[in-house]
Amino acid sequence: MRDFLPSDVRKREYVIGIIKEVYESYGFEPLETPAVENIETLTGKYGEEGNQLIFKILKRGEKLDANAGENDLADLALRYDLTVPLARVVANHKNDLPRFFKRYQIQPVWRADRPARGRFREFYQCDVDAIGSSSMIVEAELCAAVSEILTRLGFNDFIIKLNHRRVLTEILVAAGIPAERDIDALIAIDKLDKIGREGVEKELLERGVPAENAKRLIDFIVSILLPKGSNTYSKILRASVSFNEANEINLKKMSDFISTNGFERSGLNELKDVLKYDEEGNYNNDKILIDPTLARGLSYYTGAIFEIALTDGDFAGSLGGGGRYDGLIGMFGKEQIPACGFSLGLERILVVMEERGMFQKLVDEGKLKLDSADVLVTAWNEETIGESLKLAGELRRENLRVLIYPEADKLAKQFKYAGQINVPFVCVLGETELAENKVTLKNMQTGEQELVSREYIASKIKAPAL
Amino acid sequence: MRDFLPSDVRKREYVIGIIKEVYESYGFEPLETPAVENIETLTGKYGEEGNQLIFKILKRGEKLDANAGENDLADLALRYDLTVPLARVVANHKNDLPRFFKRYQIQPVWRADRPARGRFREFYQCDVDAIGSSSMIVEAELCAAVSEILTRLGFNDFIIKLNHRRVLTEILVAAGIPAERDIDALIAIDKLDKIGREGVEKELLERGVPAENAKRLIDFIVSILLPKGSNTYSKILRASVSFNEANEINLKKMSDFISTNGFERSGLNELKDVLKYDEEGNYNNDKILIDPTLARGLSYYTGAIFEIALTDGDFAGSLGGGGRYDGLIGMFGKEQIPACGFSLGLERILVVMEERGMFQKLVDEGKLKLDSADVLVTAWNEETIGESLKLAGELRRENLRVLIYPEADKLAKQFKYAGQINVPFVCVLGETELAENKVTLKNMQTGEQELVSREYIASKIKAPAL
Repeated sequence: MRDFLPSDVRKREYVIGIIKEVYESYGFEPLETPAVENIETLTGKYGEEGNQLIFKILKRGEKLDANAGENDLADLALRYDLTVPLARVVANHKNDLPRFFKRYQIQPVWRADRPARGRFREFYQCDVDAIGSSSMIVEAELCAAVSEILTRLGFNDFIIKLNHRRVLTEILVAAGIPAERDIDALIAIDKLDKIGREGVEKELLERGVPAENAKRLIDFIVSILLPKGSNTYSKILRASVSFNEANEINLKKMSDFISTNGFERSGLNELKDVLKYDEEGNYNNDKILIDPTLARGLSYYTGAIFEIALTDGDFAGSLGGGGRYDGLIGMFGKEQIPACGFSLGLERILVVMEERGMFQKLVDEGKLKLDSADVLVTAWNEETIGESLKLAGELRRENLRVLIYPEADKLAKQFKYAGQINVPFVCVLGETELAENKVTLKNMQTGEQELVSREYIASKIKAPAL
Repeated sequence: MRDFLPSDVRKREYVIGIIKEVYESYGFEPLETPAVENIETLTGKYGEEGNQLIFKILKRGEKLDANAGENDLADLALRYDLTVPLARVVANHKNDLPRFFKRYQIQPVWRADRPARGRFREFYQCDVDAIGSSSMIVEAELCAAVSEILTRLGFNDFIIKLNHRRVLTEILVAAGIPAERDIDALIAIDKLDKIGREGVEKELLERGVPAENAKRLIDFIVSILLPKGSNTYSKILRASVSFNEANEINLKKMSDFISTNGFERSGLNELKDVLKYDEEGNYNNDKILIDPTLARGLSYYTGAIFEIALTDGDFAGSLGGGGRYDGLIGMFGKEQIPACGFSLGLERILVVMEERGMFQKLVDEGKLKLDSADVLVTAWNEETIGESLKLAGELRRENLRVLIYPEADKLAKQFKYAGQINVPFVCVLGETELAENKVTLKNMQTGEQELVSREYIASKIKAPAL
């Protein structure tokens, strides 16, 4: 787990600020839940592997019987994600919440995972969920909000892959994959980019999928306009096929493939609704791409699923994803309540922004400030410190962030400190300056110094060029 | 532990926003540390009682040996306060931090305490600390920043009580209290308001303080201009004695009392410096009051100590406090580094603001918004939903927070929902409106409805009176 020093926190808060602003503009409201949940709330929700990764909290005082066996040692646990706490809140506070509840939640979660690049044991999730409606308006708005966030952060190569859990099942059934081989088939298909058609075919056979069905599935997958993997998306762009056209082609192929077995097509219709609302609302410009190979790990999804990918090729993972889960809330209350959400991975977004130099660009554009303060006021000697404090107060009332050198010291040392902390301006208030009721203002970037009347200092600092 | 529903979060974020803004203006920078620390970092720092209240995290996988005994079951623990993590960070990251490091940190901490009014097992602390300087400029700026925060939040009856750990010891020594009776004496003195002079004298005798010394101590305490307890502060105010005058009188009495035993007065001089800087910097207007009975619980303080009290009598506890702790950081590194900090109790501030109706006032003044959105756009029927989405997008680009009713439904139901969630405006976009390229805008407070051209809707919502 990590400490975040000031410039780290400032970058995180910039990103979180944009995320909040956009979610608020879509009418999502903030929710916060405690870090600690009752252990029963969490266990059994994330599969066996997830269970192992939950941090459990030791019982306290008399409750703790060290001889009671491993399962009786803990009564509480650290939050593992933000979706299960949301489901619990919706069930617990049903009467305090509106019929349609749109909430966002940006808080840390904890997993006892082996740390890796971009994977930490404490990390933030930025979740947004709409509770209470089955309409695809929800999906369209979620995609629009996420798309707006990424655009405002400066990403221009992201796409939102869209698929549907029921459609995925229908495709596998249409290919004749036995239900118990579903997961094997998805894992094999996922490797198409890496091991090629023959490799996947071989793997499907090894995993027990009959040759004929394996061929049917692969034939279908390669006929789709986008095989999985970020490199290949560019093929579409190069071929001057817009996402709209690609989506139409893919939906047609999916529909044909499924309908050969006579399946009902409500899943496909939902996908079409999402695209229709998105287009009619002018929400996204060619950002959503139907990808029938997208599966998403979590088992609680029941409808549309999405995942964000970057196509420039420097980052293979996903920046976030989500989907519809109409069954989860019913596990905590008496009532089944439809729900759909999107989760952004803050840590990954930060990693990519750092590596792509996007923060530096924001700093250069003046949109992000990483320096510790706008100005340092020197402390000349014991007698003039009061005047330095007074000047600091004046500048703060002008909405400047003002540091005061915290003890009377040699001026050279104070300038050296200003250089170390990278503050853009220094105000020197010595006896000469005080006698004239002026301040020597030093621009630390240019090295220029000038004697400035007190009433003009703030404006000189705010707009040095004037 | 509590869930925070949207309006709770908005109130909390308003208060946190003011706190951040003021701390930033004083040149403090944000720091964040993980919720989870190694257990050794925390144990032994908060006394025996504190140790009992630490939430400990069970070891995982092979590391856990359920038969190993209670002390070997946990390797991690939840953060108990923000000061110990800060000391660890300063020791760990010494080379990445400037010589003077001013940081604020606003994060939850956890204590396995019995919950009570205003006391929770998960609660936020708002800490601000200045590391690296022994100058009383630090104390003066901390008091100034805290004072500005409380003023901006709307408190006008707060005072900052100021004392000094060494002075406190010197007073007890001057009274002839044996060192091993220090704590007993402070506890007894604390009850002066409740049990009166005779009661305290009796208690001191019972606790083993010689009669002569008990009398000397009480004589001194009652000679000071403010006995402890919020009721009694008003005496000073009624007597038209300013805090400045009271401080002068109290310091003189303290000095006389201590000097009878020939003690050096560096502690008193530090208090005088704090007051002098505060006055010269025009920082506080009569907010700091020297209170020689203030003790503060934590044992790591070494110099000036402060505590915030409210004088209107509706809240007896403290909204925050702090002091100088020049020895703590040395416990984590090789070097002794001076430090001084102030911690605001967010939960208590929120409780008092709620009880005093201060949030309602902020809402009335338009400074705080608790409603879920600025406007709800209706969904008329399946065919017009695209237009509703488009309108929502237009209004969002005008920086409005826009909800869309998430499915085509009867208009009456949509209005009922708008009433439930307390949204101030509803935009109706039906077939008539679409034909005219207009929108029916309903003001939910006045009930007025008017047909408005699309380009004027945003401004009508922003300034309904125009």
